[in-house]
Amino acid sequence: MPSKLEAGVRTFAGCGAPYDESEVVLFGAPFDSTTSYRPGARFASSSIRSESIGIETYSPYQMEDIENLKISDAGDLELPFGNAGRALDVVETFCGKVLDDGKMPVMIGGEHLLTFGAVRAVAARHPDLRLIHFDAHADLRRDYMGESLSHATVMRRVWDLLGDGRIYQFGIRSGTREEFDWATAHVRTELFTVRGIDGCSEAVSGYPVYISVDLDVIDPSEFPGTGTPEAGGVSFKDLLDALLCLKGLNVAGFDICELAPHYDVSGISTALACKVLREMLIAYY
Amino acid sequence: MPSKLEAGVRTFAGCGAPYDESEVVLFGAPFDSTTSYRPGARFASSSIRSESIGIETYSPYQMEDIENLKISDAGDLELPFGNAGRALDVVETFCGKVLDDGKMPVMIGGEHLLTFGAVRAVAARHPDLRLIHFDAHADLRRDYMGESLSHATVMRRVWDLLGDGRIYQFGIRSGTREEFDWATAHVRTELFTVRGIDGCSEAVSGYPVYISVDLDVIDPSEFPGTGTPEAGGVSFKDLLDALLCLKGLNVAGFDICELAPHYDVSGISTALACKVLREMLIAYY
Amino acid sequence: MPSKLEAGVRTFAGCGAPYDESEVVLFGAPFDSTTSYRPGARFASSSIRSESIGIETYSPYQMEDIENLKISDAGDLELPFGNAGRALDVVETFCGKVLDDGKMPVMIGGEHLLTFGAVRAVAARHPDLRLIHFDAHADLRRDYMGESLSHATVMRRVWDLLGDGRIYQFGIRSGTREEFDWATAHVRTELFTVRGIDGCSEAVSGYPVYISVDLDVIDPSEFPGTGTPEAGGVSFKDLLDALLCLKGLNVAGFDICELAPHYDVSGISTALACKVLREMLIAYY
Amino acid sequence: MPSKLEAGVRTFAGCGAPYDESEVVLFGAPFDSTTSYRPGARFASSSIRSESIGIETYSPYQMEDIENLKISDAGDLELPFGNAGRALDVVETFCGKVLDDGKMPVMIGGEHLLTFGAVRAVAARHPDLRLIHFDAHADLRRDYMGESLSHATVMRRVWDLLGDGRIYQFGIRSGTREEFDWATAHVRTELFTVRGIDGCSEAVSGYPVYISVDLDVIDPSEFPGTGTPEAGGVSFKDLLDALLCLKGLNVAGFDICELAPHYDVSGISTALACKVLREMLIAYY
Amino acid sequence: MPSKLEAGVRTFAGCGAPYDESEVVLFGAPFDSTTSYRPGARFASSSIRSESIGIETYSPYQMEDIENLKISDAGDLELPFGNAGRALDVVETFCGKVLDDGKMPVMIGGEHLLTFGAVRAVAARHPDLRLIHFDAHADLRRDYMGESLSHATVMRRVWDLLGDGRIYQFGIRSGTREEFDWATAHVRTELFTVRGIDGCSEAVSGYPVYISVDLDVIDPSEFPGTGTPEAGGVSFKDLLDALLCLKGLNVAGFDICELAPHYDVSGISTALACKVLREMLIAYY
Amino acid sequence: MPSKLEAGVRTFAGCGAPYDESEVVLFGAPFDSTTSYRPGARFASSSIRSESIGIETYSPYQMEDIENLKISDAGDLELPFGNAGRALDVVETFCGKVLDDGKMPVMIGGEHLLTFGAVRAVAARHPDLRLIHFDAHADLRRDYMGESLSHATVMRRVWDLLGDGRIYQFGIRSGTREEFDWATAHVRTELFTVRGIDGCSEAVSGYPVYISVDLDVIDPSEFPGTGTPEAGGVSFKDLLDALLCLKGLNVAGFDICELAPHYDVSGISTALACKVLREMLIAYY
Repeated sequence: MPSKLEAGVRTFAGCGAPYDESEVVLFGAPFDSTTSYRPGARFASSSIRSESIGIETYSPYQMEDIENLKISDAGDLELPFGNAGRALDVVETFCGKVLDDGKMPVMIGGEHLLTFGAVRAVAARHPDLRLIHFDAHADLRRDYMGESLSHATVMRRVWDLLGDGRIYQFGIRSGTREEFDWATAHVRTELFTVRGIDGCSEAVSGYPVYISVDLDVIDPSEFPGTGTPEAGGVSFKDLLDALLCLKGLNVAGFDICELAPHYDVSGISTALACKVLREMLIAYY
Repeated sequence: MPSKLEAGVRTFAGCGAPYDESEVVLFGAPFDSTTSYRPGARFASSSIRSESIGIETYSPYQMEDIENLKISDAGDLELPFGNAGRALDVVETFCGKVLDDGKMPVMIGGEHLLTFGAVRAVAARHPDLRLIHFDAHADLRRDYMGESLSHATVMRRVWDLLGDGRIYQFGIRSGTREEFDWATAHVRTELFTVRGIDGCSEAVSGYPVYISVDLDVIDPSEFPGTGTPEAGGVSFKDLLDALLCLKGLNVAGFDICELAPHYDVSGISTALACKVLREMLIAYY
Repeated sequence: MPSKLEAGVRTFAGCGAPYDESEVVLFGAPFDSTTSYRPGARFASSSIRSESIGIETYSPYQMEDIENLKISDAGDLELPFGNAGRALDVVETFCGKVLDDGKMPVMIGGEHLLTFGAVRAVAARHPDLRLIHFDAHADLRRDYMGESLSHATVMRRVWDLLGDGRIYQFGIRSGTREEFDWATAHVRTELFTVRGIDGCSEAVSGYPVYISVDLDVIDPSEFPGTGTPEAGGVSFKDLLDALLCLKGLNVAGFDICELAPHYDVSGISTALACKVLREMLIAYY
Repeated sequence: MPSKLEAGVRTFAGCGAPYDESEVVLFGAPFDSTTSYRPGARFASSSIRSESIGIETYSPYQMEDIENLKISDAGDLELPFGNAGRALDVVETFCGKVLDDGKMPVMIGGEHLLTFGAVRAVAARHPDLRLIHFDAHADLRRDYMGESLSHATVMRRVWDLLGDGRIYQFGIRSGTREEFDWATAHVRTELFTVRGIDGCSEAVSGYPVYISVDLDVIDPSEFPGTGTPEAGGVSFKDLLDALLCLKGLNVAGFDICELAPHYDVSGISTALACKVLREMLIAYY
Repeated sequence: MPSKLEAGVRTFAGCGAPYDESEVVLFGAPFDSTTSYRPGARFASSSIRSESIGIETYSPYQMEDIENLKISDAGDLELPFGNAGRALDVVETFCGKVLDDGKMPVMIGGEHLLTFGAVRAVAARHPDLRLIHFDAHADLRRDYMGESLSHATVMRRVWDLLGDGRIYQFGIRSGTREEFDWATAHVRTELFTVRGIDGCSEAVSGYPVYISVDLDVIDPSEFPGTGTPEAGGVSFKDLLDALLCLKGLNVAGFDICELAPHYDVSGISTALACKVLREMLIAYY
Repeated sequence: MPSKLEAGVRTFAGCGAPYDESEVVLFGAPFDSTTSYRPGARFASSSIRSESIGIETYSPYQMEDIENLKISDAGDLELPFGNAGRALDVVETFCGKVLDDGKMPVMIGGEHLLTFGAVRAVAARHPDLRLIHFDAHADLRRDYMGESLSHATVMRRVWDLLGDGRIYQFGIRSGTREEFDWATAHVRTELFTVRGIDGCSEAVSGYPVYISVDLDVIDPSEFPGTGTPEAGGVSFKDLLDALLCLKGLNVAGFDICELAPHYDVSGISTALACKVLREMLIAYY
């Protein structure tokens, strides 16, 4: 009796498969120590699980129910606050194990730097990996206040790994002049919108793909609960259309990052994040 | 002297007519006991009246002033928390009296279940009633956790009363697979948007119409103060256009529901609800 | 690996024993449909579990660690919103099973009415039960708006079951004249404070005891997150002293009720509730 | 039917007497234009009326029910924002009328400057008036940024009217050196606490008395919803004891000021203000 | 060392030029005494400076960095709360000095009335001044509760100065019937949107222009932190396009008004205001 | 003119002395990367400066005005998020310079770990340093999740430096069993209260003293804006009495830590912190 009772509370909506029987493994990564402005993304996974009781498990967009899928929710990793290097190692190790078990890892960040840990695990197993990146911020600094590991440098670190022309950015509307200049030569950056997602989808077809959604790509009106809100973003509908456009690709892993629920006492940011996660889980299953 | 002083505080903006001289009777229905996720809609009418001092009584959309209309604000009904059946009876009785006095009832919910009480009163006097329903949620479950009376079942209960083809839904973007399947055969459901409102308006022309606006049809960015926020909604402008498209119909009653003001400390949800109510009162007077 | 990771998130701090090996069974009761003023106590158990990561499992007040005790956290019951009678039945049934399995039930409400369900289960097995009740409100109305089952009537319903002189109230500072008059003849009510707890402890010694803590007995400054805040309450320290004074009694079950976390965005109310729960679990184990 | 329904919402709890039959007249004064730090006290009366449904009309402290008293709630005055002089005139005129009708005026501020308007009306009819003043701030500046009318100068303006030795201050814990020096010679100031209230009560016995409670005299933990919170205040219980100590005096009028409800989303400040008002209405009736 | 450390905190992002070397002078005007609904705009400049650390100094919209421009941040003016006339004089005097020093004044309000002070200074030096006004509210009342100086009358006062046909309004969606009727004959008002900005730009080309942005022109979903939110507004993107359309005009001064940060605990309103200010500083430099 | 205008905004209240002329140097340390529960203390110094306009510069407790003292506010240090070691180095270096310039450093944290940086600088110059520590938490862990540098280990690191019997703790009410056991042998820990402060004051008389106030020692009712609220704390008055009891000691430096302003939208936590800082600056000057 208790085990059944607990199910709804303890996992993300509808993700009740045991680890061994699952094809997709969801996990939380509560860490935000390098956040440069307003921290709090560490509470995203806890909030998303608790509040997922407020959304349906069925998607009218894709006419599919998440309860029909074999997804396990592995809970949260234990990440050491204040030590970015070790945190990345833990994420990489866990994702590696999931991949080696033949399953797809799905991370609920935490700050965006953690994507680098997941990508390291995926790229080690898929050397020709492509990364599709939705974000308000370019995240392409070489360092931030002297630190190479930061949520403001994460895509530069990913580029260190993947090299030129394999990172596709969408929705970018904030950065330094240096970042934008550097981006021109090394990554493909769509400013302000998700236009060009079709072309991107074609370009990466056939390759393994990692999809990283920094949820602050969405306009702060729809998603105020984030550390660095940046006006002029895309809508949930725009993002959803773009994400569904990537359905059918060879997705090797994905994440959603940078929900900081304390800044949004209305709860709409967490509710939106739940819905994005539900749609991504169904689309890339 | 006191009566003049009190006017602005105690009634919805501009609705100062005595009951006997009024053509429209506004009332609040503070009840939310069957709310499945976040309760608090019971405070909607109190909040709407208090904050209506922040909007003008004049509408630049319709070039009309609510102060020119004969509308009385009857205050709030006393509804017994925890007893959905009795609450519906009180709403039905009050609406019945208003209708029998030759006036139009306008309800400020409260949770959406209360619409069933109002519709029972209207349908008893207008057997060929049509219902136009704006909502994020289908509200078509047969029961919820074993309860037939719930804010998640209200449109199914209305259908019990009105039958096939007489309920028009707009903006629906959440429900179970069963609800969507059932809807196909029994009601007309416009997913995600208010498209098709013109056709609906023509179809119901000549019939008595009840209009029920679950305000969560609006995107949570514009209306965060609600129990079950659902990303991907329509805008205030879209809703207003749709509502004005229904001007001229034979409206027998209407309501706005599911404002839960505590979840939105900025107050924009209540301010929006005030404006929707002002426009509906002018449009359907 | 996942199961260990999840432990901290999914149960109340330190309560990780399997049901079969436990001596105490903690469960949540998310229900608040009869709340008369501000609902939201349904979110208490979810909030208490999530935020219990912010307190230590060790008590410097009792020099004991909750991790050394065999306590299981059974998750939340499924209670039908809007149907108080059925909700009480579910609580009673679950508590009965726990008692019949030789364990002590501990409930995280929810609204205070639910105490009646737990007490029915305990009293059926311990006919000479005494109840010690901490609260700001007398909760002794015969009915509330015509309803006999309400969080404002719960102690009257308990009296229906236990009879005169077996209910001890502390901290009461709100009620109708009728409640206070009735209380004089039927229950023992300490106004405003917890004075007299020693005498109470002696009086009930040897009898089975149920302890019900409506957390709003605490002053709203320390516990703002509740539906009906009432100035002039006792402090956490006063309550803790009183609760520790009851250590050694034959406690058959207990509960904490009426945390409504949404009203306190600072989180101090949930943090305090976690600490009260930790101390009670250690004291009455 | 409507009129009865509205009663609970539209007036302060239990204050339903018609003006002509009343002995006490309650009114709101929504004005805060001279507030020096955080404005918002204009919303106090609206908030107090709405939320007074959360407290009982019966006082267990005085064993009396406010419903047994003849008190009318006259609603809010219309005060011109940005013009302190005119606002004071409106308050003075209304209080004068109430006094001339043989009733006691009771004001819900608004900022503290408004007390000067009420005191002008009372002092004109009771030349030997004494004033008892509870506050965190001395409010004794000669001017504030060049303005003689300010919430920081109000007691100096009252002194202009009443003269030396007739103002008794309690709880003061903030001011300039000049204010404290000046106070020594002209008013009686109790720092930090309400000690000495007995002596004050004796001293003013036989004289007409105006009691002004700037609610920020209470500690910010119990009353965070105010414009200028000042740590180290008195408790609700201390204030209540002091206020009850003044029972039996010849009270000619009183007010509560400086609740700014927006700063306290938990609502405990408004709930406390409701309770202070209930107790004062019963005590000084 | 300290001076460098302090720079980021104490001025708006990137505005570090000394006054004497600057071409543009930014200043704050903390005043909101005539606000008719919810005050708090006095905290806008403090909030904008503090939170400007969250945005980049580089604009990807205009490909320019504010750090390359000679802009000084002069801090806040001292304005006497409760005395609108004197506050306007202080604003006028300061703007006059800035203009006489050959620099452009840029004001962070405060309430919208303050625009009148700035315009008086600019118009005295540029008699053929045109004003472009973005706002939700017409602000064209002759007086408000008898007061000629109010945030609801400010554009009428500007018209007193400039005369017919020289004020261009955009985004207006709230006012009395009288205001809209009066506007037809005296100013050019674009209802609801910023359409027609091209024509306006052409019409004022060659004239000195003052641009006043009441930020509540933006939809409350994107800008909830304002005193009088009005649903149905323009988006940040719309406003930005309109503002960039005015680039190249002879801008003599500008302001942004009516951010009231306390109403938006998420901080997105301040973040948006920072971005509007950055873009305007770059565009009109 | 601008420089004068800016003074009130840019420094803590009354701390306007130039660095070279000052005897005390105040600085902010915005860092919270090792915070184990709820981060946000990085915003303390910004919030304290902005909101210090709400308190007087004069203390009625000590009858002294901070404006009479030579205190400079050096702004905030630039600390690299995510790198605790480097952050400590920056704090140590800056404090060392201040000390070498013959001035007393006063730090506004940030998280409590930063105290270790300041103590390293002070202890290097005062080898017989004593430390007096007010806190809810023992902060005596050997490591936290494997990290030796953490806000949960800070006093253990200080002990590494100072050795047995030189750390005096007050108000401690949270920790692991290991911490409390270890404390018995190595530091002097007063549980729950500030009793024994007199004895401590005598014991350290003659020695150089560093005073570290983790503001969460205060009860969460008075100080909700902190990362790890712990019920059952001391009052502001208790803390102030204890701090004034230390007046006259040879204070070599001090700090206040762990204000996390975002968790307290009422602002009372920041207001209290401002007052504690004012009193400490006057007492230990």
